[in-house]
Amino acid sequence: MIKVGVLGAKGRVGSAVVAGVQKADDLELVAEIDHGDDLQQLVDAGVEVIVDFTTPTSVMGNLEFCINHGIHCVVGTTGFDDERYQQVRDWCAANEGVGVLIAPNFAISAVLTMAFARQAAPFFESAEVVEFHHPNKLDAPSGTAVKTAQGIAKARKDAGMGEMPDATEQALDGSRGADVDGVPVHAVRMQGMVAHEEVIFGTTDQSLTIRQDSYGRESFVPGVLTGVREVADHPGLTIGLDEYLGL
Amino acid sequence: MIKVGVLGAKGRVGSAVVAGVQKADDLELVAEIDHGDDLQQLVDAGVEVIVDFTTPTSVMGNLEFCINHGIHCVVGTTGFDDERYQQVRDWCAANEGVGVLIAPNFAISAVLTMAFARQAAPFFESAEVVEFHHPNKLDAPSGTAVKTAQGIAKARKDAGMGEMPDATEQALDGSRGADVDGVPVHAVRMQGMVAHEEVIFGTTDQSLTIRQDSYGRESFVPGVLTGVREVADHPGLTIGLDEYLGL
Amino acid sequence: MIKVGVLGAKGRVGSAVVAGVQKADDLELVAEIDHGDDLQQLVDAGVEVIVDFTTPTSVMGNLEFCINHGIHCVVGTTGFDDERYQQVRDWCAANEGVGVLIAPNFAISAVLTMAFARQAAPFFESAEVVEFHHPNKLDAPSGTAVKTAQGIAKARKDAGMGEMPDATEQALDGSRGADVDGVPVHAVRMQGMVAHEEVIFGTTDQSLTIRQDSYGRESFVPGVLTGVREVADHPGLTIGLDEYLGL
Amino acid sequence: MIKVGVLGAKGRVGSAVVAGVQKADDLELVAEIDHGDDLQQLVDAGVEVIVDFTTPTSVMGNLEFCINHGIHCVVGTTGFDDERYQQVRDWCAANEGVGVLIAPNFAISAVLTMAFARQAAPFFESAEVVEFHHPNKLDAPSGTAVKTAQGIAKARKDAGMGEMPDATEQALDGSRGADVDGVPVHAVRMQGMVAHEEVIFGTTDQSLTIRQDSYGRESFVPGVLTGVREVADHPGLTIGLDEYLGL
Repeated sequence: MIKVGVLGAKGRVGSAVVAGVQKADDLELVAEIDHGDDLQQLVDAGVEVIVDFTTPTSVMGNLEFCINHGIHCVVGTTGFDDERYQQVRDWCAANEGVGVLIAPNFAISAVLTMAFARQAAPFFESAEVVEFHHPNKLDAPSGTAVKTAQGIAKARKDAGMGEMPDATEQALDGSRGADVDGVPVHAVRMQGMVAHEEVIFGTTDQSLTIRQDSYGRESFVPGVLTGVREVADHPGLTIGLDEYLGL
Repeated sequence: MIKVGVLGAKGRVGSAVVAGVQKADDLELVAEIDHGDDLQQLVDAGVEVIVDFTTPTSVMGNLEFCINHGIHCVVGTTGFDDERYQQVRDWCAANEGVGVLIAPNFAISAVLTMAFARQAAPFFESAEVVEFHHPNKLDAPSGTAVKTAQGIAKARKDAGMGEMPDATEQALDGSRGADVDGVPVHAVRMQGMVAHEEVIFGTTDQSLTIRQDSYGRESFVPGVLTGVREVADHPGLTIGLDEYLGL
Repeated sequence: MIKVGVLGAKGRVGSAVVAGVQKADDLELVAEIDHGDDLQQLVDAGVEVIVDFTTPTSVMGNLEFCINHGIHCVVGTTGFDDERYQQVRDWCAANEGVGVLIAPNFAISAVLTMAFARQAAPFFESAEVVEFHHPNKLDAPSGTAVKTAQGIAKARKDAGMGEMPDATEQALDGSRGADVDGVPVHAVRMQGMVAHEEVIFGTTDQSLTIRQDSYGRESFVPGVLTGVREVADHPGLTIGLDEYLGL
Repeated sequence: MIKVGVLGAKGRVGSAVVAGVQKADDLELVAEIDHGDDLQQLVDAGVEVIVDFTTPTSVMGNLEFCINHGIHCVVGTTGFDDERYQQVRDWCAANEGVGVLIAPNFAISAVLTMAFARQAAPFFESAEVVEFHHPNKLDAPSGTAVKTAQGIAKARKDAGMGEMPDATEQALDGSRGADVDGVPVHAVRMQGMVAHEEVIFGTTDQSLTIRQDSYGRESFVPGVLTGVREVADHPGLTIGLDEYLGL
């Protein structure tokens, strides 16, 4: 049983993490910290791993305290830049054996989709991305879709591939999608849907499609729990879930 | 056994029709006519139904001859306009009981997709079309996708529906597709693919997707054979396969 | 503005209907009735249409009262049999112009999927159903999938079609699905999924797929609201949503 | 320009390879060998890489000749067992720098699907395979689907995972698919389809789907050409395309 503390435990994300830890047979929730609570509780409760979904303002103080007390950290809070990463690395260097995972995206299916897309890209002449979201979304395409396309573009470039075949001469404006580094990206907005992404690759007589569907708002939970289980085996700072997924 | 004659029997489409008729247990191929052959052969062979995949130049002569000889006609040749339709109607009026089917599209899955899309449209706030073709295609989106979108737009208008919900404020150019009468249409060009179309509808907590896939170049054959089997029961001129499909 | 009353307003389904009516611009919620409340409130509030998601015990009393007071009824409560339907018809006969819609399934995408499947069935040699549900479901396949397959089987039979082509000689047990009146039905159980169904049809060089996805527990709401809006135009008893959907 | 020789050049597969090599800008076809031709032609033409799609009877002689003449080999011929592999290894040991690739499956999308399935398996509670083939196929499920399921089962076992969640109590026979090492596999037989496979994974609020579609009979060509381009960089014997795909 790994003893877990959750910081930001009363937030929407944090409370879902709390529920996820409580349901897991191999994890024990021993501390729930929210704004204003004393971090010393973590030490008193014997916490081995903390999960931090707090705010850019509080996260660095939380990390300094935890790393210096030998507590591993799984972090989904946003607002990290190179300077902050370096600071975390310095704290880790002074506390050998402590692992810190900072990831912008804990949705395993999204992380795998992006990784598989990068792996597959060099072997297919054509690649396009179609994403589907509820119609209240403000931006198009989604950040994940743009990132996916950029990963494909980079993998193609690294493999020395040129432009995709496309004989289109006569097109209605917008029909061929947005051009993200040469990869067409299409955004569908659909009442009732949540968040879905399809990456399609094609070559002679075949296609390969990788699709992720998010059906609800707790799709990050399995990725966070994977982080909690594995962080002790990854000392120092790790950025992004990929390494933990064996990618 | 219905006795069938094929006009344009040596063309790519015609020869596929010939093969399809030969394979069908309830149809008998008794005449194959190509450029320069005498139409009298049709009468001599006792043809009951002809299939015409010839040229805009020859089709009207073929139809005049067949209708006047009491032979039903299934026609996939292009180039018809209102004037030609009226001429065919006149010939039919003079030959009661003769059926003529002229259809721009014999691919049953495409015709059903368009019909189902029109039927479903009034019940969903959101509707978009995504089509996928091989990268040698010159136009985007495909004619079928444009027609599908127009059908959806008309059905929405007839039902008094307004614009689709879409909160997008910040979009990469082209990401939201082409606007066909208010319905977004996205065109994917993919090496290895043939011709595919997906119509997606969404409302509260649910979506409905109608998808057609063409895997080869003979997807029109079942529709032509349906026409051959049913044309005697549809005297006069019928435009489009819909009525034959019970739509 | 149609004045609406909801019976069973505090139940899970009823409260979703309440929220749906409140959000609709053309509907006005004027009465919420639950167990023990006096039905006279409906009359006092000028209710034009009631929605009943109560219990088999209370629904007949509710209908008798409403029909006799000239109030149209949209009913999702279960437990109806031929005797009950006849009773409702008798009440309607005595109250000309009152419409009653009783439907076992208000999920529009599911109802359309079943209807489209019946329409498409005669034109494709092959047809199979694949359904996907969360792994807590007790039965396999789902009732909707079985019904869909039965509809396909009946449509094939009515069209004089024989068995589907299938050359399988060597099969692992269960791989070809359950046989529902000759239509193979496959059930997938998948953590994270909600309720999804795919109907696949195939003929020469093409396939047609009709897919419905339920992403949440309120997928019945749009169908109920469609019922509310249309019930006044359908006097007498209507069973099932199909007629309202123009099917 | 890599100089390529094709053995079995007149067979169905070999002639597709011939056409593929001819179309590739970076490959030059300098020898076409068929039954009875003298292998010395390969040396005379300066062949650097041969592709062998011949028969189990001739392949070992071909390989001995080529390896001993310093020619790299890409082999799709069947009939290899441990003894034959060892023989090839011995020939390679005596000819340092010569690369030999022997692969049972050159369809890149199929190979990637199996690899991605193994990678994803440890992170999802549920996993099922659905495959779709034309109805003339004699076995169900397909060999590829069985292999995919076995790979998933092994990855789950290696990760210490138990059975998948499945509350099914009441099931129609066959509805839950074939059990391949604990992974349900469903086989659909559909007129018009070619060869398609879908691997579905699910965990909290999300699913991941990997799908491959074969639209024609030349889906092995890109994999063979990848082999031809890379074989010189992989001295010794390599079994299976995975390593060449960076998997």
